[in-house]
Amino acid sequence: MAIQIPRGTQDILPGDVEVWQYIEKIVREVCSTYQYKEVRTPIFEHTELFQRGVGDTTDIVQKEMYTFKDRGDRSITLRPEGTASTVRAFVENKLYGQPTQPTKLYYIGPMFRYERPQAGRMRQFHQFGVEALGSNDPALDAEVLALAINIYSKLGLKKLKLVINSLGDNESRTAHRDALVEHFKPRIGEFCSDCQGRLEKNPLRILDCKKDRDHELMGTAPAILEFLNEESHAYFEKVKAYLTAMGIQFEVDSTLVRGLDYYNHTTFEIMSEAEGFGAITTLAGGGRYNGLVEDIGGPETPGIGFGFGIERVVMALQAENTSYPTQEGIDCYVVAMGPEAELKAVQLLNELRQNGIHAEKDYQGKKMKAQFKSANRLQATYTAVLGDTELEQQVINVKHMETGEQEQIALDKFIEYMKKVTQ
Amino acid sequence: MAIQIPRGTQDILPGDVEVWQYIEKIVREVCSTYQYKEVRTPIFEHTELFQRGVGDTTDIVQKEMYTFKDRGDRSITLRPEGTASTVRAFVENKLYGQPTQPTKLYYIGPMFRYERPQAGRMRQFHQFGVEALGSNDPALDAEVLALAINIYSKLGLKKLKLVINSLGDNESRTAHRDALVEHFKPRIGEFCSDCQGRLEKNPLRILDCKKDRDHELMGTAPAILEFLNEESHAYFEKVKAYLTAMGIQFEVDSTLVRGLDYYNHTTFEIMSEAEGFGAITTLAGGGRYNGLVEDIGGPETPGIGFGFGIERVVMALQAENTSYPTQEGIDCYVVAMGPEAELKAVQLLNELRQNGIHAEKDYQGKKMKAQFKSANRLQATYTAVLGDTELEQQVINVKHMETGEQEQIALDKFIEYMKKVTQ
Repeated sequence: MAIQIPRGTQDILPGDVEVWQYIEKIVREVCSTYQYKEVRTPIFEHTELFQRGVGDTTDIVQKEMYTFKDRGDRSITLRPEGTASTVRAFVENKLYGQPTQPTKLYYIGPMFRYERPQAGRMRQFHQFGVEALGSNDPALDAEVLALAINIYSKLGLKKLKLVINSLGDNESRTAHRDALVEHFKPRIGEFCSDCQGRLEKNPLRILDCKKDRDHELMGTAPAILEFLNEESHAYFEKVKAYLTAMGIQFEVDSTLVRGLDYYNHTTFEIMSEAEGFGAITTLAGGGRYNGLVEDIGGPETPGIGFGFGIERVVMALQAENTSYPTQEGIDCYVVAMGPEAELKAVQLLNELRQNGIHAEKDYQGKKMKAQFKSANRLQATYTAVLGDTELEQQVINVKHMETGEQEQIALDKFIEYMKKVTQ
Repeated sequence: MAIQIPRGTQDILPGDVEVWQYIEKIVREVCSTYQYKEVRTPIFEHTELFQRGVGDTTDIVQKEMYTFKDRGDRSITLRPEGTASTVRAFVENKLYGQPTQPTKLYYIGPMFRYERPQAGRMRQFHQFGVEALGSNDPALDAEVLALAINIYSKLGLKKLKLVINSLGDNESRTAHRDALVEHFKPRIGEFCSDCQGRLEKNPLRILDCKKDRDHELMGTAPAILEFLNEESHAYFEKVKAYLTAMGIQFEVDSTLVRGLDYYNHTTFEIMSEAEGFGAITTLAGGGRYNGLVEDIGGPETPGIGFGFGIERVVMALQAENTSYPTQEGIDCYVVAMGPEAELKAVQLLNELRQNGIHAEKDYQGKKMKAQFKSANRLQATYTAVLGDTELEQQVINVKHMETGEQEQIALDKFIEYMKKVTQ
């Protein structure tokens, strides 16, 4: 019996893989112009990293991680997201000690969460993200946002909405927190048990609750923006001014809180507004965080970052009918007849390829007519025919498949000729 | 306390990651000219795949796999190599039914084996490999070899040795096997217990034994090449003729057997002959296999492939002192003084980057002098200085850092100017 792929994972095959390669190419190019450098961390980490870096009480850590014991009895977890590993690498390799700061990093690769597979949500999925560590400058918040927007726009996505908010500094957050407790406490009995637990631990998360979303107290809850102290307010104003200066459109939504405890100041999401994109419209999310680097054992270091799923970008490209590369035709198909011609053809083929020319021949023992059919199927621009007669005369017959034009080329001029016509 | 990276894994940081990116770029380009297309399979598979596809009795399967139960109690294994997954994808997605055959695939990515970490042998390592499925043409064997050689040569590696051998077809292998048994049987008691077990199961593997390598019967063991039947001999002659036609140098070594049972006909290894490369000199290994596609549940399909470790390529590049890209300098560092200038600088910076220009500014609140120092550290080709005075006059001062030449440019011509000078 055939062995199947594990549930919630997928093969990305030729025909589909080209759009992934294209997205990665754009991501790398844009990161390079913004001076973000790639970091590659292992596929698995000590489980403790995610308990500390993602948070012990989150759904990810409690329910969704691929955690197992290795042969040395250590608890190992396939990374469920990219930030904790990137910060661990920043701390362990003492990147904070390097002369150029902030440290601007990006990662791209597979992540793993044991969830119910559904459209756009796989157990192995792929994320790109950046982390800029070591600066408290609101211009950096704006840069990170501009980077995300610029990647999407280079990919051709147009129907995007950027939503931003500020959670302020600790003082602002505490003031807001107290106001939230005061707001919900008298009627907390009407909320779900999860929310009742959240009231004292993290009342902000009540606003994210899916069960109680329609309770009347939700709409009237005090908004964080009203509680920003002067410094936090000024910080947020600067971020907005930078975005405006760059011509980046945004909406402010004071209910955008994001789940993780370590966020402060700027938080943001980028949504797709393309029709038929599906129920979950968020493409990217991120924000500024303090405390995370310390949680993972490093020195106090401010940071800001975002992440996005590659699968969702593929979906968005399709939903917007954006053109992207698919499999391309080849430059030259070499048709050879007879064992001597085969030998010469193999040599020529290799030489074509060494010169960067996309070339192919038959490996199925096909007759000449069937070889031409293969050439057509591969959308060859040229075919080059080599039989015993041609070999005797030391020539090769080159045909432009679209125009039908044919030329007989001396064998020792063939590579030069092909280099010229395919340039 | 800081959380550390798991043993046997590594972070690839900026400064080191560039050579990885470079290798991957060359690999992709060369594969493209040879018409090999990328396939991406999941990081983990059902354990059974590797038991069947790598072999139940191999060290890999018995001792080295990262195997665990997922939350659905399925036995899952982090892939220890790339061939089994690629063949599984070929079978499951019925690629054998597509009109263009052979199916020529490549993979590149992390693999996992729980071994004692040592130089060039990590628990998470990275492999590139190709599989060409669906043709029995010896020209394809030669193509696969040429592809490997061409990648190394594009990377600038020169000190390479290609060793080939043929294991022949089943008839040839059986004849050889019988001769081996006859050769070793009378004195098998002088061999290690592993070899005693191998005698009946797979006497070929005795030749690979590290413990008994110096036993006198090893040197006099019957060589497979003497047992090739006519067809297998002709096949091997053709492979050699194609290699010679392509100008690829090789040695024939009839002791090159490779561990896996499913190999037949051509097997090969590429070794580094660079001084100081280390004890293990093999860079790449592969060969032709029948039976594997059937083992994994597909139709009878011939195949040939090879794999190589990226870590070893990095080591070889270093051992040969080959030049490869490292971190590059930036095009333009924007020095801004004063809040108004900052605002404008952020806008200009973003516009430069949108135009593909590698640009940076300060995010640390540094004084002008320190900003110039940063520009030098980043090897900026140009600095562009914008203060209140310049802003008032709507100009910006552009300085070529090497020549010291300065020019004052109208602000609204700055992007055009930078596009021109950085082209």
